[in-house]
Amino acid sequence: MLEDLISKIESQMPLSIDAKKHIFAIARERDLKKGSLLIREGNSVNKTFFVTAGCLRSYCLDKNGKEHTLQFAIKNWWISDFIAIYTNELATLTVECLTDSSVIEFNAKELDGIHKLFPEFESFQRHNLERHVVSLHRRILNQMQLTAEERYDLFLEQYPDIEQHTRNYHIASYLGITQQSLSRIRVKKAKN
Amino acid sequence: MLEDLISKIESQMPLSIDAKKHIFAIARERDLKKGSLLIREGNSVNKTFFVTAGCLRSYCLDKNGKEHTLQFAIKNWWISDFIAIYTNELATLTVECLTDSSVIEFNAKELDGIHKLFPEFESFQRHNLERHVVSLHRRILNQMQLTAEERYDLFLEQYPDIEQHTRNYHIASYLGITQQSLSRIRVKKAKN
Repeated sequence: MLEDLISKIESQMPLSIDAKKHIFAIARERDLKKGSLLIREGNSVNKTFFVTAGCLRSYCLDKNGKEHTLQFAIKNWWISDFIAIYTNELATLTVECLTDSSVIEFNAKELDGIHKLFPEFESFQRHNLERHVVSLHRRILNQMQLTAEERYDLFLEQYPDIEQHTRNYHIASYLGITQQSLSRIRVKKAKN
Repeated sequence: MLEDLISKIESQMPLSIDAKKHIFAIARERDLKKGSLLIREGNSVNKTFFVTAGCLRSYCLDKNGKEHTLQFAIKNWWISDFIAIYTNELATLTVECLTDSSVIEFNAKELDGIHKLFPEFESFQRHNLERHVVSLHRRILNQMQLTAEERYDLFLEQYPDIEQHTRNYHIASYLGITQQSLSRIRVKKAKN
């Protein structure tokens, strides 16, 4: 529900009545079935989604048709193809619902316009982006320096609520390993 | 020189005389010898650097002592340990000069304070962070879906000026491959 988003923003900054009204005016609540695609690779992208229930992921397909998962999103996370949004290019990612899900949908340009209308969002969003940069730097470093098993442990620690919604190949394609490797790691962990 | 930074900012936004004076007041120009370390893993980090000449890199060491390069920086790029800066934690990265280099050094807190003093920097920095997020998303996707040879080609295309300053193991540790693999790729390319 939209109140989830309002609460999340208000946990970081005071929100004026006008700003709240504006968010209500540009937001659209959507309930989606498992398997629904919100963004398709190759299409233009003008939507950003705030997740209020369920689990979604963004992924790309390589030239051999293999999927690579960039991001999972559960309650209180944002998801879109931010490469496409920030560069005005066509989608290189697909965003799909891994479960029945509820999202708040925004037109990306309208959402971006909030910074001009309510400049207090500038600093708020800058700090969000800083945190996002930190998580991406960490992900790159972890991908380079950790073993597959260490990356899986970290995934479970950082995203304890995601595994229940996902299939083996979703997680394997996020960790950059084969499903066979993931199964071996799981068997080994179950024995310990 | 400091003028390089001013030009770079002015290519994106108008800069008031007061803002320019403030940047001059908080900036410190430094000339550094090849091999100098600007940030050391495990230490506290309170500096951010804008490169005006030379080539630097940030890297971490894994538990086996192997280096992994997160970033290179040449003229007009910023470098620091942004994980440490944005989270207030100790450095997980080391930043070293790969060549004799010149940088503009800022105290990170003073630099951050510019957003409060001159709010026009909010939107400027938000857009910089958006572009940075795009490049990190692309790097993660490329690391997952491209072959080592494709990643090397992309590296040469995106950073044509870096190879001349770096050694084999710097680039290999950025691409996430062994030096032997990089050598094989180079031999193969030289034959074609």
